[in-house]
Amino acid sequence: MTEHPRGFASDNNSGVHPEILAAIAAGNDGHVVAYGDDEYTAVARERFREHFGEQAEAFLVFNGTGANVLAIEALARPHEAVICPVTAHLNVDECGAPERIAGVKLLGVETADGKLTPDLVADRITGVGDQHASQPRAVSISEATELGTVYTPEEIRSLADLVHRQGMLLHVDGARLANAAAAFDLPLRALTTDAGVDVLSFGGTKNGLLLGDAIVFLRSELARDFLFIRKQSMQLASKMRFLAVQFDALLGRDLWRRNAAHANAMARRLAGALAVIDGAELAYPAQANGVFVTLPGEAIARLRDALPAALPFYVWDEAAGTIRLMCSWDTTEEDVDRLAAAIAAAIQ
Amino acid sequence: MTEHPRGFASDNNSGVHPEILAAIAAGNDGHVVAYGDDEYTAVARERFREHFGEQAEAFLVFNGTGANVLAIEALARPHEAVICPVTAHLNVDECGAPERIAGVKLLGVETADGKLTPDLVADRITGVGDQHASQPRAVSISEATELGTVYTPEEIRSLADLVHRQGMLLHVDGARLANAAAAFDLPLRALTTDAGVDVLSFGGTKNGLLLGDAIVFLRSELARDFLFIRKQSMQLASKMRFLAVQFDALLGRDLWRRNAAHANAMARRLAGALAVIDGAELAYPAQANGVFVTLPGEAIARLRDALPAALPFYVWDEAAGTIRLMCSWDTTEEDVDRLAAAIAAAIQ
Amino acid sequence: MTEHPRGFASDNNSGVHPEILAAIAAGNDGHVVAYGDDEYTAVARERFREHFGEQAEAFLVFNGTGANVLAIEALARPHEAVICPVTAHLNVDECGAPERIAGVKLLGVETADGKLTPDLVADRITGVGDQHASQPRAVSISEATELGTVYTPEEIRSLADLVHRQGMLLHVDGARLANAAAAFDLPLRALTTDAGVDVLSFGGTKNGLLLGDAIVFLRSELARDFLFIRKQSMQLASKMRFLAVQFDALLGRDLWRRNAAHANAMARRLAGALAVIDGAELAYPAQANGVFVTLPGEAIARLRDALPAALPFYVWDEAAGTIRLMCSWDTTEEDVDRLAAAIAAAIQ
Amino acid sequence: MTEHPRGFASDNNSGVHPEILAAIAAGNDGHVVAYGDDEYTAVARERFREHFGEQAEAFLVFNGTGANVLAIEALARPHEAVICPVTAHLNVDECGAPERIAGVKLLGVETADGKLTPDLVADRITGVGDQHASQPRAVSISEATELGTVYTPEEIRSLADLVHRQGMLLHVDGARLANAAAAFDLPLRALTTDAGVDVLSFGGTKNGLLLGDAIVFLRSELARDFLFIRKQSMQLASKMRFLAVQFDALLGRDLWRRNAAHANAMARRLAGALAVIDGAELAYPAQANGVFVTLPGEAIARLRDALPAALPFYVWDEAAGTIRLMCSWDTTEEDVDRLAAAIAAAIQ
Repeated sequence: MTEHPRGFASDNNSGVHPEILAAIAAGNDGHVVAYGDDEYTAVARERFREHFGEQAEAFLVFNGTGANVLAIEALARPHEAVICPVTAHLNVDECGAPERIAGVKLLGVETADGKLTPDLVADRITGVGDQHASQPRAVSISEATELGTVYTPEEIRSLADLVHRQGMLLHVDGARLANAAAAFDLPLRALTTDAGVDVLSFGGTKNGLLLGDAIVFLRSELARDFLFIRKQSMQLASKMRFLAVQFDALLGRDLWRRNAAHANAMARRLAGALAVIDGAELAYPAQANGVFVTLPGEAIARLRDALPAALPFYVWDEAAGTIRLMCSWDTTEEDVDRLAAAIAAAIQ
Repeated sequence: MTEHPRGFASDNNSGVHPEILAAIAAGNDGHVVAYGDDEYTAVARERFREHFGEQAEAFLVFNGTGANVLAIEALARPHEAVICPVTAHLNVDECGAPERIAGVKLLGVETADGKLTPDLVADRITGVGDQHASQPRAVSISEATELGTVYTPEEIRSLADLVHRQGMLLHVDGARLANAAAAFDLPLRALTTDAGVDVLSFGGTKNGLLLGDAIVFLRSELARDFLFIRKQSMQLASKMRFLAVQFDALLGRDLWRRNAAHANAMARRLAGALAVIDGAELAYPAQANGVFVTLPGEAIARLRDALPAALPFYVWDEAAGTIRLMCSWDTTEEDVDRLAAAIAAAIQ
Repeated sequence: MTEHPRGFASDNNSGVHPEILAAIAAGNDGHVVAYGDDEYTAVARERFREHFGEQAEAFLVFNGTGANVLAIEALARPHEAVICPVTAHLNVDECGAPERIAGVKLLGVETADGKLTPDLVADRITGVGDQHASQPRAVSISEATELGTVYTPEEIRSLADLVHRQGMLLHVDGARLANAAAAFDLPLRALTTDAGVDVLSFGGTKNGLLLGDAIVFLRSELARDFLFIRKQSMQLASKMRFLAVQFDALLGRDLWRRNAAHANAMARRLAGALAVIDGAELAYPAQANGVFVTLPGEAIARLRDALPAALPFYVWDEAAGTIRLMCSWDTTEEDVDRLAAAIAAAIQ
Repeated sequence: MTEHPRGFASDNNSGVHPEILAAIAAGNDGHVVAYGDDEYTAVARERFREHFGEQAEAFLVFNGTGANVLAIEALARPHEAVICPVTAHLNVDECGAPERIAGVKLLGVETADGKLTPDLVADRITGVGDQHASQPRAVSISEATELGTVYTPEEIRSLADLVHRQGMLLHVDGARLANAAAAFDLPLRALTTDAGVDVLSFGGTKNGLLLGDAIVFLRSELARDFLFIRKQSMQLASKMRFLAVQFDALLGRDLWRRNAAHANAMARRLAGALAVIDGAELAYPAQANGVFVTLPGEAIARLRDALPAALPFYVWDEAAGTIRLMCSWDTTEEDVDRLAAAIAAAIQ
């Protein structure tokens, strides 16, 4: 195998945190009941209750697609609709899984920065009671968003209040919830349970796990029958303990925050360096671990040529010249400084 | 955590083979492109071609449910039907996933030993061309079967020939294909590619992997568009390299055979010991890594009390008094001998 | 067009009763609000309440497939299962629509005469609470059955009691409910509402309508959200009044009973005539409007040659030599006597 | 029953044309093979070939939802996407049926007048080959549109050319195709077959039928397996002849054109009258049978009070003050003149 230099293309490109690998190895002893009826899984589920409150019912799944789509399956019936930003991962990066698997309609909303507001949501709650129209049932937001921005607890609360007044439910795609909580230096529940969120997709994979995400029902009655939904939707791991020990390691200590805070700090460092480069312009505030920067003219092509890795970054908006730069738990200060220098060089 | 003694409840209860863990650790270097477009995955896919022939197109997924259901999605359209034994995992252990996800109808066939025959299949190919009837499109068999029996290469070939004459396709649920191949001391392709199989679910999890199964199209044209099916059906891993390195370790050396042959040998040892116990009767020939034994009277209850583990075995047929005893890659001769002695004691 | 002689192939081959056609013409005045929010539909729904009780919530759909599948969609979620006879129309004649549209698994039960019994049902209620197994949620029976037999009110009640004790629901495919009620000379509710049935598919098409069936929820709380299910499942008629006036004509007078009783009487006449023909043997008691008779040797082929119509009857069981003979609202005594004579001649 | 004055709320509110009722009555003779294997259906299918060319394969279904959704099922697999205007009936009036039944994603495009252009379409053909993105497979346009506008044959051809260059297919929702053809005084094929359309939903219900729409594959190879799709999707009529005779009456003479041209003429008359009313402004050109007019201030409320019928019209855009006025095959000049006078009065 060739070398694998760290890049800024995706927080999915990074590997497994050593503490996670160690936890997997430690869990590899003898026989344990398969399919989740084991004590490792019980411990992991308890970890979620410690973070999200006594009501929290967590179910481990394989990936973020599974977490998001199964959450919607649990919340909405096929004739119902889910309101989300047009930029939501759910809407653009799941190959239509929410529609095909949950049967629902997604109602995409244009936003300035990847964030819904109560007014934007209220405008899409139409056709209620009209048999010809998909019935709005849930709102789904991403915390942090796909654009590297974050909702404050108050912003989430105002969405939750609106949604609940309409008899609807609030889902949070928390593939990067740890980054958002670290950004505010708040506990995870401040942005979820305490802000009125009903169901959460909690991301592990992007934050140092080998593989694993979770669906966390913050009101336990919503979890009814979910065991069957998970199984029928093909997201039930047989050797569940190896998902469970990862979450125990992530949540049982402060690893979730260490990893996320580090990635955020690297993003802030990068954003700070870009701020003083003439010609580079941040497209959105760098509030979590992603930096979106717009570069002039041929700079993107020159930057790509200058960087070593096979895929050093993604172009987010070809027309505007905006690229996405993601920091990970393993990004170093040197990585950041080298990239900033390369960008400065590419602009001239 | 308490101790986790090895039992005979399930080959999913065993842990990860040390060589697999080592391979994961070795693959944990730097950044690698996510979602399968990386060199580790390319190597793993090449391993499948080495075993199954140049035409073989392998796709890694999370679990056996995913492998089986997605294979059917790829082979059959919703108005079509899949013929399988009533005892097929597909039919009884997937919470209806094939019907709900692939939309197809399963046509279950009663069998003596978990194995279809050309005659049994031919009887179910009815209603062809009748718009009111689900159209038979594929036959699915398990090799080894859920009852611990195996098909010979000739038996598979005769099914493939029948199926192909009807314009249909043959799928093999190979969650335990390695055990079948080891039982015959044949290469994997002898029971699949060379026997006329069209699509294979290849099991890794039950044979020492942390997690991972594969769908292997043995005729490459059947793999068209499968990338999209896998993604939309929520079985695309982001950090794919950690599935890939496991399959490389399993298939790139003889680990697949060592693990399977060992589990088979333990099953044979167990069956041999049971054969000389008065009152214990094998329900099916122990041809792979599972042993099904029928015990008299209160023996099952006494056996359960005598064994230490939380769940030492499953009762397969309550009425008949048959229990299922599965051997794993990590089962020891002492485990077997201790179990045989406990059974002998429970019968008296 | 050529002549269209009446035959015994199917009660779907018959045309529209003149009173139904007259009702359609009478409803064809001016403009009426589309999609069911009109007074004709209100009247039709009231007719169902008159027959089935104040709780009855009826929804008109296009055909029997729609009535059966949408009823299941309303009763069961995709991870649940419906127990039915293997001979159920739902199981063999809907091209897999229940599985594909409602997502459920059908658990087919072998029966002697197309009828489930509490014992047969109880045997299939397994795996409750096991996440790997589709969860039994409903039992579906046909009244009258596809084999021309009928359940007594007591038989239905005993099924309903069992089902309700298990927290499950009872669905009746009543494509020929009118025939069953006429056979017992009982009101429609005696076999449904009063016998503990939860949801009914009520057939109109086979009993003299141009087109139209209904889903009748006998406990109104089960009808919640059904308007949306009907629309999303493509069974909402725009010019609903033309379905409604047919049901008003069928149920507002005794037309439903006249048509059904006549067809039954013709079946009894036919069965009586066959009973005295040496070599002809009734396969099932002729309790509704269908007669199943087993003929010796080449009699089927000779009979087919002797009859004028393009498709005079269906062969029900090729191996046994059993044919199905369906009587309709428009079958005449002469038709029956001519057929009986032809059968007698074909046997010799 | 009360009187049912004609209104302008919907062309679905009108009744059945007398020639259609007569055709139904004429087809009501004796027994005819059910489910479409009859000579009436053969004749109807031949009528479609006469209009749309020798390749045309027509299948009759119950309603427009069925026609549109089943066409998409036939054209696209679940991981694919269909591009359509955001105002498409498919997108806003089917309660999410395309997503739930066909599994696809709809990619809605904002338009000025309900019409797609090659540029608008080209902008949405993105993510081709990217496994995370639903793959654009078809474009769906409505002819006439939901806004009362029409595409010229050249405009359709330019869309077809673009679509075909991309390996995609063009679907036309022709619920009001007859109105568009009548508007141009062109044969039906000029706007479909001859313009490169691949599949058509052909509307009957809105143009004088009791009930019935059709899916017409203009390239016969696209119709493969469609019999099964129709059945499994619950759109197969048992007494098919009664759909068939309606289409024979509609298409075998010039009834389709007479009805449509009359409705169009009434819309033109209405638009002409509104054009000279101060304060009334046409929102879109009235090119088919719909007129969209924007009224000032309280005029809508006053107009509603002044009109007799329960639901005389729909408000299309509450904020803008735009109402939709649909003309039908039975709208009279007096109806139009009375409405125009009422609008003029309501404005003052």
